[in-house]
Amino acid sequence: MSALRGQLPIMRLAELSKRADVPRSTIKFYIREGLLPAGESQGRNQALYGPKHLERLALIRALREVAGLSVDVVGRVTRELDRGWEGDPFGQAMLAIHAPPAPPKSAEDAAELETLREEVREFLRDLPWTVDDEERRFFSDEIASDLLLVRRYLFPGFPVANLARTAQIAWLLSEAGFELVPGGAPAPIAANNDDLAQPVRLAILGTVLFERIFAALHRSANAMRSIRVAQGLEVPGA
Amino acid sequence: MSALRGQLPIMRLAELSKRADVPRSTIKFYIREGLLPAGESQGRNQALYGPKHLERLALIRALREVAGLSVDVVGRVTRELDRGWEGDPFGQAMLAIHAPPAPPKSAEDAAELETLREEVREFLRDLPWTVDDEERRFFSDEIASDLLLVRRYLFPGFPVANLARTAQIAWLLSEAGFELVPGGAPAPIAANNDDLAQPVRLAILGTVLFERIFAALHRSANAMRSIRVAQGLEVPGA
Repeated sequence: MSALRGQLPIMRLAELSKRADVPRSTIKFYIREGLLPAGESQGRNQALYGPKHLERLALIRALREVAGLSVDVVGRVTRELDRGWEGDPFGQAMLAIHAPPAPPKSAEDAAELETLREEVREFLRDLPWTVDDEERRFFSDEIASDLLLVRRYLFPGFPVANLARTAQIAWLLSEAGFELVPGGAPAPIAANNDDLAQPVRLAILGTVLFERIFAALHRSANAMRSIRVAQGLEVPGA
Repeated sequence: MSALRGQLPIMRLAELSKRADVPRSTIKFYIREGLLPAGESQGRNQALYGPKHLERLALIRALREVAGLSVDVVGRVTRELDRGWEGDPFGQAMLAIHAPPAPPKSAEDAAELETLREEVREFLRDLPWTVDDEERRFFSDEIASDLLLVRRYLFPGFPVANLARTAQIAWLLSEAGFELVPGGAPAPIAANNDDLAQPVRLAILGTVLFERIFAALHRSANAMRSIRVAQGLEVPGA
């Protein structure tokens, strides 16, 4: 819990509960589950809490209430945060945001999925912005599973290479997303020993909220495109 | 159930169950719930089913198993399908894919949400591809709710206009998505009395699967961009 040490403890549980707007029993639960470090003990049944506890509770609330993450997933994120630069809190959160893909239904599906995984990894590795193809391997596994469903339920034989334009647009959107952050997206640096909590909060909430906003804009765009195509109206470029 | 009439009934329940790979009790449940029309009665406890029943069962399975829609939501989609050109099966599915936004927590939030809704509607109305600003109003309501969370948890005062580039990219993605459909995206036409089931199936499954694929590509793009920024590497354009 290094990020929470070395601070002046200043309030008792009742005040922490009031200021964080989190019930005392919930705070105790978070401490038991390891989401929040214990306060500084002042003898039997007394402990003092500091501003870092407030910050951590705000993070937990945001991850639960806004991003809709479960206590288990939030626990994985905070445990990684507590490991500091050794940890991977953002990766854990990304891993947790979507449910793991369903296992293949048959031996044939399993074999095709294995081939698809290799192909998707190669596809991602060849993108001009990829730094490390071992990084975030779960993304490629998720894409491979969805592509198998595309082949089974929509377009038989759909090739991985057909995702080239989609990947390019994902890169454009990541550029636009980083530009939306006032003052620029924070990039904490290990050598400076920068605190990771704030960038992780920003990255997780930003990912979840702007993904939802983008999905709604995209569905609206699809609806308008369908109407234009069906009615023979002009379909403008972007 | 107009789409399912006028066909030759050819099989009994046992064969329908076997060919559709759906248990008999589930088929009976779908009939009771109105997702599937009853077979053609051949006297007590006997009914015959046709190819349209098979198609409908395949649609129901895909919507449930691939798109993850609940029986209730699938029922809303099939009821709209049964209304033919009077219905809005795709709209009902889009409405159902995401949970409705949480209600605002305070009077202040409610007031800001109301203003945001107006602003988002105006923003969407002014996009060059918008056909009808009354169409799909739930998209704008969803975006407004998420923007309120953006303001509360990420960037206070975040202006709607900052979504301009995001909207443009959503339009690019809808273009790319339509181009992914072999032979072009089907645009059924009322005057031809075209069948809606197949385009609706394609639109719903395509939306769900390619949204998931795009989200994974986008999260991968964000991860790579973060690594490049943090390590001072070149950040290529798309």
